[in-house]
Amino acid sequence: MAKSRLKIIPLGGLGEIGKNMMVIECDNDIIIVDVGLMFPDIEMMGVDLVIPDISYLEDQRDRIRGIIITHGHQDHIGALPYLLPVLNAPVYATRLTMGLIEGELKEQKVRDRVVLKVLPSDGVVTLGKFRVEFFPVNHSIPDAVGLIIDTPLGKIVHTGDFKLDHTPVSGKPTDFSRLACLGVKGVLLLLSDSTYAELPGYTPSESVVGENLERVIAAAPGRVIVATFSSLVSRIQQVIDAAVKHQRRVFIVGRSMTNTVRISQELGYLRAPDGVLGQLDELKGLPADKIVFVTTGSQGEPTSALVRIANRDFRQLHIVPGDTVVISASPIPGNEALIHRVINDIFKQGAQVLYSGLAQPAVHVHGHASQEELKLILSLTKPRFFVPVHGEYRHLVQHARLAEQVGVARENIFVMQDGDILELGPRHGRVTGRANAGNVYVDGLSVGDIGSVVLRDRKMLSRDGIVMVIIAINGQTGELVGRPDIISRGFVESKDLDVIEHSRDLVSEVLTHRRNRLAEWSVIDNKVRETLNRFYYEQTRRRPMILPFMMKV
Amino acid sequence: MAKSRLKIIPLGGLGEIGKNMMVIECDNDIIIVDVGLMFPDIEMMGVDLVIPDISYLEDQRDRIRGIIITHGHQDHIGALPYLLPVLNAPVYATRLTMGLIEGELKEQKVRDRVVLKVLPSDGVVTLGKFRVEFFPVNHSIPDAVGLIIDTPLGKIVHTGDFKLDHTPVSGKPTDFSRLACLGVKGVLLLLSDSTYAELPGYTPSESVVGENLERVIAAAPGRVIVATFSSLVSRIQQVIDAAVKHQRRVFIVGRSMTNTVRISQELGYLRAPDGVLGQLDELKGLPADKIVFVTTGSQGEPTSALVRIANRDFRQLHIVPGDTVVISASPIPGNEALIHRVINDIFKQGAQVLYSGLAQPAVHVHGHASQEELKLILSLTKPRFFVPVHGEYRHLVQHARLAEQVGVARENIFVMQDGDILELGPRHGRVTGRANAGNVYVDGLSVGDIGSVVLRDRKMLSRDGIVMVIIAINGQTGELVGRPDIISRGFVESKDLDVIEHSRDLVSEVLTHRRNRLAEWSVIDNKVRETLNRFYYEQTRRRPMILPFMMKV
Repeated sequence: MAKSRLKIIPLGGLGEIGKNMMVIECDNDIIIVDVGLMFPDIEMMGVDLVIPDISYLEDQRDRIRGIIITHGHQDHIGALPYLLPVLNAPVYATRLTMGLIEGELKEQKVRDRVVLKVLPSDGVVTLGKFRVEFFPVNHSIPDAVGLIIDTPLGKIVHTGDFKLDHTPVSGKPTDFSRLACLGVKGVLLLLSDSTYAELPGYTPSESVVGENLERVIAAAPGRVIVATFSSLVSRIQQVIDAAVKHQRRVFIVGRSMTNTVRISQELGYLRAPDGVLGQLDELKGLPADKIVFVTTGSQGEPTSALVRIANRDFRQLHIVPGDTVVISASPIPGNEALIHRVINDIFKQGAQVLYSGLAQPAVHVHGHASQEELKLILSLTKPRFFVPVHGEYRHLVQHARLAEQVGVARENIFVMQDGDILELGPRHGRVTGRANAGNVYVDGLSVGDIGSVVLRDRKMLSRDGIVMVIIAINGQTGELVGRPDIISRGFVESKDLDVIEHSRDLVSEVLTHRRNRLAEWSVIDNKVRETLNRFYYEQTRRRPMILPFMMKV
Repeated sequence: MAKSRLKIIPLGGLGEIGKNMMVIECDNDIIIVDVGLMFPDIEMMGVDLVIPDISYLEDQRDRIRGIIITHGHQDHIGALPYLLPVLNAPVYATRLTMGLIEGELKEQKVRDRVVLKVLPSDGVVTLGKFRVEFFPVNHSIPDAVGLIIDTPLGKIVHTGDFKLDHTPVSGKPTDFSRLACLGVKGVLLLLSDSTYAELPGYTPSESVVGENLERVIAAAPGRVIVATFSSLVSRIQQVIDAAVKHQRRVFIVGRSMTNTVRISQELGYLRAPDGVLGQLDELKGLPADKIVFVTTGSQGEPTSALVRIANRDFRQLHIVPGDTVVISASPIPGNEALIHRVINDIFKQGAQVLYSGLAQPAVHVHGHASQEELKLILSLTKPRFFVPVHGEYRHLVQHARLAEQVGVARENIFVMQDGDILELGPRHGRVTGRANAGNVYVDGLSVGDIGSVVLRDRKMLSRDGIVMVIIAINGQTGELVGRPDIISRGFVESKDLDVIEHSRDLVSEVLTHRRNRLAEWSVIDNKVRETLNRFYYEQTRRRPMILPFMMKV
């Protein structure tokens, strides 16, 4: 009998934060773990979303036995609406995760074409040669799971996104014992979350925040406005619990927050006594110290409720002195400036603001394991092979270092990047090739048709604007007709049009004095670009995009 | 005799980080403290620098007795080349600060037109009714000072940027005793640095970093590359000292680093034994463990030496496995993504990277006072009035809270914003008005001629690009001549030009079937914009800028 071969191919999430997607192959069977999206960085101008490149899977789609989703965050489910119709395989997830997936699929109108199968948080499914078992983990969203994947070569443990919380607010603690038993029997490969591999110590329990939020709500002289992630259901639960204890009603603000609260209540992940949750039109007459708002906008997203409130652009809710605003989240890298602007604006309107930049009270804890937890998981599972997942390259390197410290053999630790193909045998593994893996841009309705040229142009346009030169030329004689027209945008203010006027004369001159009146347009085009480029740079030290257009009349 | 009146007017640095500039008026005399610049945020597209609006000073320039600069950082000196020729007053600063100012002024070719006066770090100068005394403070650049300003109403203490370092690497410790004596006699007003008012505890001494850097250099198996701010002379000194101790030579890389090292050596702020500092062409044949590089790029600045090295775009220096790279700085807010990309790239090339995101070893300490230091300064000076300076609004609010905690009367604490005019009497103070204060943009050669329209256009261009429509119309009949031409940039990839082709027909149709062939151009223009806007949005969900241009033929 031929030996089985196992391949591990990350198509996203290794070397860059977000758009997590992992392909695992055993002989003729393929399973996929997570199909996430990434939000564009500032250099991807005008791009709405970034999803994984799945060209590697294109001619082996019939081998895909299933897609397993570890939890309901966008960086793990967000590319499903775009890729699921192509991948065309059943999706397995826990109940809340599936509720969120369904919402996404319906929004993009692809719900009907796909097969979704709900499993409990300790469910098992057999997919070809793989037997996949869920185990519950703690994360900043309920119903998150890790995976134990039985293969002919041995067991793979995939942690998903996780932390170890002995006193979680929703769900059970991460199932250590199950992992410990596995470790005793032998684990072939551990794939573990590296997001916070730089952080020493332990990540505090979600309960810590609850105690602090309750103290804040108890002491607040007026209204309390708590902003957090809409998916952080346990945080919303803690706010509701504290409000109930201190005889306040809770008002949910913002579309995505309202949606999640509804789904979570329906599915039983969020509990509120009757009469606690209110509608904004019931606010009238309610004393300020009986009110708590829960809202989105903790990342300073420009269209979110909190940002509109801070800008006095939200009809039903204006900040007044005496309000206490709690930003119960920490900034995702890149969002710092946005959220700080919101904090400043709210302070200026006389409210108290509590946020994660302050040492006390802790109004947020994050959802990923720190170094001691990572070492504990490594020590419990005692894997032969280790691949750090979910993180920038630096996080993967730090996590690899932790693995070495707790005794994983250096040659069995693979710091991979998206697209690397790792082949594992029972004793040895190595990276044997590369799959296509990169960013596919979603911009408006189109997926993947935005490329480097469009982005380079947008970047250039954003720096110094554009200058268009319209040149009318006599089709017979090649002579210039009239004065060239020049229109600019984003280059100089309209009061400074001298430089534009001068440049029209300059173009006239260049075109009138050229030797060969019937020269190729490309020659004229180059000459005009060169002349204007030099002139504008001399005059302004700016380099707008220059676009000559010739019209034969 | 009429009583003197004191006014405090921040034109920069209050409510926003950077471009520090404070106007202090007493009757007919004005002094200015610091004239800094700010680097543009991502929304100020294509803008090079931001400087203060000084229109408030325009018709009272003859009252300005002097400009005092506390230290040589760009956010305190950087606007001088642009504003000093207008303000036309003598500049007072310590020796290194003045050396850096001179460099800036020469670069912008305005050195000849201005008066610069060097004072020692405990120097005194009388400027109208003001007697200004320097006192040394510790900061992340040598020769930084705070100010004790005698006025007819009492003493003002201005800390400048500072921290309290009992074991500084260059210069003396901040002069506490001088401040304590002042406090006993009575201080009217304290203006104190709020940048780190959110941070509990004390800021560690610069010496801490020295010990860690020495350990790193001692243990490194190969070359060590240290990236830091070029103005952080004490850090460079510590690297040189450690290199000397471990028989390594030091090579300075990068233009601004080379400049500062030269100026600092000339002025005696940096000491290196003969033969330690080397030129890059002396590298050949030197063993790897005898080499330390000091370079710029600790903020991931795209043209800096470190970034070019990380991109393998720096001829003289490529990363090799065995190298140790130390990023001896923490990211300035907004630069996180840039510097993390550099760290990831260097890790991928097999070097070890140490950076401030890691808990151990501490390879950077910052240069501003934390909460306990701020309280100490407040307690020592016991001011009647307190104005927190240098920081975003949230920092000022936190600093105000500290002042209240140590006993400053709440009604005597003024959390001001740029442009507020604070009038102080001997017992009472209040904000009595507003001066113009805002951002003046420097873009290329021009100062202040970039306004909201150009920036709005650049932003729009950066999102979805631009579409130009060139329409030829018969001047007599008003009839369309030929098919309209459409050129786009940053909108769709050139392989997806179907949408452009279709839109040409659409414009033809609109123009052919209109009722009034001789309608105003503005009517046609609007119609074309509307039609294309709708069509492109339907087809692509993008909204490019649309620019119709009519040509009469």
